[in-house]
Amino acid sequence: MKSREVQLKSRPPGLPSPDDFEIVEVDVGDAQEGEVLVRNLYLSVDPYMRGRMRDRKSYVAPYGLGETMTGGAVGRVVTSRASGIAPGDHVLSNYGWREAFRAPGERVQLLGELAAPASAYLGIMGMPGMTAYTGLLAAASLADGETVFVSGAAGAVGSVVGQVAKVKGCRVVGSAGSADKVRWLTADLGFDHAFDYRDADLRAELGKGAPEGLDVYFDNVGGDHLQAAISHMREFGRIALCGAISMYNDTEPAPGPTNLARAIGMGLNIRGFLVRHYGHMRDDFLRDMSGWLADGRITYRETVFEGIESAPEAFIGLFTGANIGKMVVRVGDAA
Amino acid sequence: MKSREVQLKSRPPGLPSPDDFEIVEVDVGDAQEGEVLVRNLYLSVDPYMRGRMRDRKSYVAPYGLGETMTGGAVGRVVTSRASGIAPGDHVLSNYGWREAFRAPGERVQLLGELAAPASAYLGIMGMPGMTAYTGLLAAASLADGETVFVSGAAGAVGSVVGQVAKVKGCRVVGSAGSADKVRWLTADLGFDHAFDYRDADLRAELGKGAPEGLDVYFDNVGGDHLQAAISHMREFGRIALCGAISMYNDTEPAPGPTNLARAIGMGLNIRGFLVRHYGHMRDDFLRDMSGWLADGRITYRETVFEGIESAPEAFIGLFTGANIGKMVVRVGDAA
Repeated sequence: MKSREVQLKSRPPGLPSPDDFEIVEVDVGDAQEGEVLVRNLYLSVDPYMRGRMRDRKSYVAPYGLGETMTGGAVGRVVTSRASGIAPGDHVLSNYGWREAFRAPGERVQLLGELAAPASAYLGIMGMPGMTAYTGLLAAASLADGETVFVSGAAGAVGSVVGQVAKVKGCRVVGSAGSADKVRWLTADLGFDHAFDYRDADLRAELGKGAPEGLDVYFDNVGGDHLQAAISHMREFGRIALCGAISMYNDTEPAPGPTNLARAIGMGLNIRGFLVRHYGHMRDDFLRDMSGWLADGRITYRETVFEGIESAPEAFIGLFTGANIGKMVVRVGDAA
Repeated sequence: MKSREVQLKSRPPGLPSPDDFEIVEVDVGDAQEGEVLVRNLYLSVDPYMRGRMRDRKSYVAPYGLGETMTGGAVGRVVTSRASGIAPGDHVLSNYGWREAFRAPGERVQLLGELAAPASAYLGIMGMPGMTAYTGLLAAASLADGETVFVSGAAGAVGSVVGQVAKVKGCRVVGSAGSADKVRWLTADLGFDHAFDYRDADLRAELGKGAPEGLDVYFDNVGGDHLQAAISHMREFGRIALCGAISMYNDTEPAPGPTNLARAIGMGLNIRGFLVRHYGHMRDDFLRDMSGWLADGRITYRETVFEGIESAPEAFIGLFTGANIGKMVVRVGDAA
């Protein structure tokens, strides 16, 4: 079986361009003893992958030049020589941007009977959804009825953060990068206040949306957003640092918040986290989220690019605001 | 009874000078019903008082111009018309830089039989000691045997932080601003590594003192120290933000740490705190600290200025590194 794959060709100092990637065709070969052969349905493009394009130590190893862009993908088993896995099974894997692949059975995760469309396992039912859930409930220790601000609120993580907070009876304020996104947040997701950060005075908007101040800030953006949120936190407020997408393409380190000393007098707690730090919460997450989806308390949107050749463009679109909700690339027929 | 007092005369944008203060003499008057008349023995000068000299909202109200510099002081009761308080009793108060004062009995704190010299109630047995104790054990959740870095390590708070960490079996690294201070930390206080930050490469010194990285950083300094510590934290490390003395005299907000995003991948927790957030730990603190002092596991030094007219100079000295251990001003005869 042939598979097209997307490899990293060069390391951009700033915003990536399609030229930094190369599409190659490889022969996947037949499944060997213990292996499965999988045809992907959807590939995930996620902001954290930008960090892996830099040649420096971080919490995940950098991509090598000429290496295929590994990351989340959901697919179906074509042939299996691994016990417990059958053709037709849906599996989640981390082999990334390829149409098909062959792997040891233990390196793919069986999804069982799908509780949502396959692509949702890359979003609301997957890593971004669980990032939102664990970051809000554990890293930020959300209590019912508090006031929450989430940046990047129309993204795969932010849109779940806001909705989980609403389920918990919170007042929710969100920032996003277009009028359409803002409308989605307030009209469909139940945000109490949302604003387009591109033409906004952040502190004024926080004052409008949360006149009593913030108990929790869920940071997907960093930079000015973090600075404004620190200024608007209530005593004993918590900030969960999840991402800093405004800074991922910086060529020089950007200055940090100048008001960090406010954390002293206000007793603020700022906690960085990765979803893998909260792996023990997986069962709770899957149970709660599938329940909330089933009863309509939480909804989601996806932005879908077509064909593996569009993966670089979809990925770059994360940083230019091209997505509402989770960004995925469809590479197979999910039917 | 006459009392000389130090009032704030002008608000310096940068490092204060003696001209920003004025010494006035007032008539204290006689104790009225319910009041005590107290002659102070020692006045406290503390870095947090710098923030109160600025006319802006913070966790303590700013000093007014022409207002006496309130803050910690320890004294003895001269006359008492308050129940339960007798002449000769030692009391802690917050009336600040004055030789004597008159106050409602409930506004002074009886020290009972002294477990240490009177001045120690402004330092190791008082606010700075309890700041160190609560910040390390509660805000930073110190566990036995961890590796700790404390900046401003020869100060009133830092010197206690390091010693409490040693009592808890930790490896301790400290920074200070002179060779004498560094010698005190390693020779007398048992620090495993200490260095003079003025001529040091902070990250190189942390590498030397804590080759495996830091579990806890207790920040008294901010600025470059905080940046270097963030870079050197181990996974799930904790940073207690106690003060930022390097920035208190800045006329413009200094840029924050550029490496805050490292908190995400490493799961770092950064918590600001004030000693008053941990008031419920007072009994534990007093019991532990008096025990550690009695059995010689913890020791302390003071830098003593003489006479109320030296209070401004003593205070300014906090920012120029004039003190080893707690800085106090003696205004009465403790014998």
